[in-house]
Amino acid sequence: MLHQKASISIFHISIIFLERYEICITHNTGFSEGVEMPIVELHVLNGYDIEEKQRLGDALTNAVRFVVPAAPELVTVMIHDMPAEDYYRGGKSRIPARALPDPIAIVKNFLVAMEARKLEIARDLLANNFEMTFPGGVVMHRLEELIVWAQPRYKFVTKTYDGFDAMQSNGDAAVVFARGTLQGEYLDGSSFESVRFIDRFEMINGKIVKQEVWNDMAEIRMQP
Amino acid sequence: MLHQKASISIFHISIIFLERYEICITHNTGFSEGVEMPIVELHVLNGYDIEEKQRLGDALTNAVRFVVPAAPELVTVMIHDMPAEDYYRGGKSRIPARALPDPIAIVKNFLVAMEARKLEIARDLLANNFEMTFPGGVVMHRLEELIVWAQPRYKFVTKTYDGFDAMQSNGDAAVVFARGTLQGEYLDGSSFESVRFIDRFEMINGKIVKQEVWNDMAEIRMQP
Amino acid sequence: MLHQKASISIFHISIIFLERYEICITHNTGFSEGVEMPIVELHVLNGYDIEEKQRLGDALTNAVRFVVPAAPELVTVMIHDMPAEDYYRGGKSRIPARALPDPIAIVKNFLVAMEARKLEIARDLLANNFEMTFPGGVVMHRLEELIVWAQPRYKFVTKTYDGFDAMQSNGDAAVVFARGTLQGEYLDGSSFESVRFIDRFEMINGKIVKQEVWNDMAEIRMQP
Amino acid sequence: MLHQKASISIFHISIIFLERYEICITHNTGFSEGVEMPIVELHVLNGYDIEEKQRLGDALTNAVRFVVPAAPELVTVMIHDMPAEDYYRGGKSRIPARALPDPIAIVKNFLVAMEARKLEIARDLLANNFEMTFPGGVVMHRLEELIVWAQPRYKFVTKTYDGFDAMQSNGDAAVVFARGTLQGEYLDGSSFESVRFIDRFEMINGKIVKQEVWNDMAEIRMQP
Amino acid sequence: MLHQKASISIFHISIIFLERYEICITHNTGFSEGVEMPIVELHVLNGYDIEEKQRLGDALTNAVRFVVPAAPELVTVMIHDMPAEDYYRGGKSRIPARALPDPIAIVKNFLVAMEARKLEIARDLLANNFEMTFPGGVVMHRLEELIVWAQPRYKFVTKTYDGFDAMQSNGDAAVVFARGTLQGEYLDGSSFESVRFIDRFEMINGKIVKQEVWNDMAEIRMQP
Amino acid sequence: MLHQKASISIFHISIIFLERYEICITHNTGFSEGVEMPIVELHVLNGYDIEEKQRLGDALTNAVRFVVPAAPELVTVMIHDMPAEDYYRGGKSRIPARALPDPIAIVKNFLVAMEARKLEIARDLLANNFEMTFPGGVVMHRLEELIVWAQPRYKFVTKTYDGFDAMQSNGDAAVVFARGTLQGEYLDGSSFESVRFIDRFEMINGKIVKQEVWNDMAEIRMQP
Repeated sequence: MLHQKASISIFHISIIFLERYEICITHNTGFSEGVEMPIVELHVLNGYDIEEKQRLGDALTNAVRFVVPAAPELVTVMIHDMPAEDYYRGGKSRIPARALPDPIAIVKNFLVAMEARKLEIARDLLANNFEMTFPGGVVMHRLEELIVWAQPRYKFVTKTYDGFDAMQSNGDAAVVFARGTLQGEYLDGSSFESVRFIDRFEMINGKIVKQEVWNDMAEIRMQP
Repeated sequence: MLHQKASISIFHISIIFLERYEICITHNTGFSEGVEMPIVELHVLNGYDIEEKQRLGDALTNAVRFVVPAAPELVTVMIHDMPAEDYYRGGKSRIPARALPDPIAIVKNFLVAMEARKLEIARDLLANNFEMTFPGGVVMHRLEELIVWAQPRYKFVTKTYDGFDAMQSNGDAAVVFARGTLQGEYLDGSSFESVRFIDRFEMINGKIVKQEVWNDMAEIRMQP
Repeated sequence: MLHQKASISIFHISIIFLERYEICITHNTGFSEGVEMPIVELHVLNGYDIEEKQRLGDALTNAVRFVVPAAPELVTVMIHDMPAEDYYRGGKSRIPARALPDPIAIVKNFLVAMEARKLEIARDLLANNFEMTFPGGVVMHRLEELIVWAQPRYKFVTKTYDGFDAMQSNGDAAVVFARGTLQGEYLDGSSFESVRFIDRFEMINGKIVKQEVWNDMAEIRMQP
Repeated sequence: MLHQKASISIFHISIIFLERYEICITHNTGFSEGVEMPIVELHVLNGYDIEEKQRLGDALTNAVRFVVPAAPELVTVMIHDMPAEDYYRGGKSRIPARALPDPIAIVKNFLVAMEARKLEIARDLLANNFEMTFPGGVVMHRLEELIVWAQPRYKFVTKTYDGFDAMQSNGDAAVVFARGTLQGEYLDGSSFESVRFIDRFEMINGKIVKQEVWNDMAEIRMQP
Repeated sequence: MLHQKASISIFHISIIFLERYEICITHNTGFSEGVEMPIVELHVLNGYDIEEKQRLGDALTNAVRFVVPAAPELVTVMIHDMPAEDYYRGGKSRIPARALPDPIAIVKNFLVAMEARKLEIARDLLANNFEMTFPGGVVMHRLEELIVWAQPRYKFVTKTYDGFDAMQSNGDAAVVFARGTLQGEYLDGSSFESVRFIDRFEMINGKIVKQEVWNDMAEIRMQP
Repeated sequence: MLHQKASISIFHISIIFLERYEICITHNTGFSEGVEMPIVELHVLNGYDIEEKQRLGDALTNAVRFVVPAAPELVTVMIHDMPAEDYYRGGKSRIPARALPDPIAIVKNFLVAMEARKLEIARDLLANNFEMTFPGGVVMHRLEELIVWAQPRYKFVTKTYDGFDAMQSNGDAAVVFARGTLQGEYLDGSSFESVRFIDRFEMINGKIVKQEVWNDMAEIRMQP
């Protein structure tokens, strides 16, 4: 059996490899496909708490699984955190940067505050150059503008969430998507519900710089 | 709470140490600017090509930056890929799983094929249980249904992309967002352009299982 | 001198390597054979005590020396133990399993208890499916059976140990060998000593599942 | 004492952490089931072939499992083998020692040769200071002595193997145990079979230095 | 030769790859500017304090930069210090050696003590086999000899330092160079200053074994 | 202070531990003899040749020994060199910088060329801002100046070397010291020999930027 394994290895180096991973394995050999167990090690300065490490553990696990088709249980992440005195760059000790806040948590806080029209709380979560784009391509910069924009459209609206997606972009921004359905009341007192929406947020250094909103409000109202 | 953690960290870095390295810390922030340089090591079986490693490099870099506020230039990723004979699990050699295809590339191929109405090519990219949801909450499963659904709405539509976002979810699916603007021609021959859209895709094992679409078509048509 | 070293290296890559490690080195080169210093790193969750780590250190050192002919002083083992918050599998923290007890210690306890006929203590160390095989191929399952079996053979017997060997098998069982000599008294009051014996034990999850006994009792009694 | 250690470990895993990860711990066990996934890394100079690496993979896996109760599938071994130019001790490159031969293979060869009375082949596998001890404590040094010793005992004997156990001792010797049953013919022409035996071998630098034999021959012959 | 190596490297980086990462390579250099970021990991037993680790951080950073043209900010050093219970050599735990004192500090102490003619303090810093060589090749072993040697030459002399250089030699000795200028008073009461000097020290186990002195005293006095 | 640290270390090594490993510690020293075996790992991009790696091996070994009193044979250096495709910084592959030339080799070439008055060869080894300082504090920038300066002093001079010391400074420069004795002929035809000298060189990017010279020429000539 060992002998067989050897010849598979050799095979793999020659033809199979050139054909780019179209590895065909018979049931006889004992090797099934896709049984790799990737291991990630992260070296950081210490100072991150359990929640922040959990977020690192999740993000690194998913980063690997984005390319390598390993079941989650087969992806191991080890975080090696070092005291400042054990880490030198250019011969100098360094102080760890405070972890970025969880972008999804920030977005949730923002959406909750907006729904309750607690503008001050919401405003604290925004960067100075905040910009929001609403259906029809309306661009606004201040939350008060949004209130005005919404007034002729509905009395109130609340959100039910189907899910959040979040990631770091290649650039500076973390990106968060919130999607679900809207329910509320039109100005004429009639109510609506199950109106699909999706919001896309960009966040830099823990502050929201951009909100983009799409939803089916117009589509629904157009329907007879 | 974060603030408290910061001050604890500083506390056990003695005064001498701070003086020694000329670290200036204001009482307000606890931390001086982020100067950490996280290092990620990934151990996988060899068999991944340059493009796949580049995708792993990007995904792992962003995973760290999602939590640690390091500039990209300060995040190092080292991939250690091992020949099968150097890796044992349960005392057995393993064969690497073929890398998952780039989800963004799959989505682009799908959108291009759909725009050109090359349904066969598009269909090859779909999982058996594919489901799409279009504005108004219309759920369809076959591409032909979509063609029928679109007929009374516009003669043709093409897409201009502002950007793609992609990530692995905690579950089995990779998620891809495509956003940008639509242009095309209504049935009455009049044209439209700059209509915002966003699509959300879920992909499992390289096949699209779900497409969700939001856009401003109705909003635009409702406008006087 | 550097130049010479280089050419040795090149030699080693071409001919020597193909001839499978029959490396012949002249006294001029300065390289003796067998001067490697293998290094083992073990990553585990923390929770193991000094004794358990010592056992890991011994077992890993011997595992390497089983294949690589390095003197013990040249084998380094480093144990990296991580707090649970630094280790993720499938994005989840894990709790370390309690170390297995030292199989040799268990066997010693069992043999001491049996010698003193403290059957309850001995029984606590046995798995439910315990089986023992004594000279002549006699198979028994309960310690009381053994007492009965021994009665017509000797009044009492004690053991002097020459050594213990222990290892993990490829299967679930750890294996322990105890060997040495027996001394005691026959039923007729005459004494015996220096009778060679060896016992083989299998242990699963810290419980003895199997004992096999060989000795020279019959051989000695057959001698005139 | 182990129990106490467990509760300390739990103590400094805060309630929040337990809630977070939905870890349920009963007060009786201290530890939930063993879900750890130990990782072993071995750094050696390159020059070992697939078979030798497989033996290292097995030995290291079992070394960990001797102490840590992980299922084999959860123990990963990574072998990092370096070209000589990448490894320095005392600033000097080193040449890898040729791997030790598989002790079990040597023992099998020896036993096969002895059974077939091919003394020269067998003798090549012995160290100069070879010593063997047979039932009754008979010590011999040369294979010819054994032939003489056996002549009055049986016409011939062959072995059926139930299993081999092998390990590196803390000292210089590798230890191999072979066990099974003997069958053959007595001098009077009557046959015997299913006679239990066990042999213990010590091997240094690939040569057998010691053989110890125990079996039930006398026990069986004593039986009526 | 180096040039050739460079072009080989480029050769197997395909055009696509170069385009992909926007790497611009002129035909003259083969290599674009040094953008590597070397990482050093040091594994030691714990027991070293912050100052000793800082010296290790500096020495390792400079060791890399001696060969690799990386800017200091791009050289990372990580010190992994282990408790004794996590480190085994030959299966035995080890106790870390106390760090060697900073050779530059020792030399400074010696020079300060000598300037102040505190011979006892200076003598404590010397090894038994201490030897000093002064301009003209004068060799002395005891500090008192030096006092006598200096008497006909100047009333007193003090030193202004331009810099210190220190390193570990390939042998047992650490080497320290002190250089700068001398000022003082001749026996006739006239003063001198800005007289260039350099001292070379060898230190073994923290004790000075050798001092060699060169300076411009004679050159200056010879000048008209 | 070191002493105190030592006793703290001992303090948390329990009595049992000390007994276990037969470690004898006197109250005076705190530490028993240095038996540590430090391990250095260097991660670089591949592209360095055997000679350059040997220099890295030497420099890193000495860097550790500068602080940790380990015998050279107990310091291990492992170089992990990665293909460009396995290393990402900021998500981008990098190209390794060409190794810096050996500073001692450059200095030797320079000194040989100067001795033979091959000014062009020597000049190629100098940086544009080259500066040399000779006995008496004479500062020159061009090699021709030096020729002129030497003319009234001696007919010719050659060097015998006792040794070279070289290191990377904390700054940009590598520093090289050459020391030994001068021999040659004065203008009057008389010869001199055994005149001690030392040269200090600074080198940046492989070019000599600074030469400082001290010797006993004047001292010797002043002697009767």
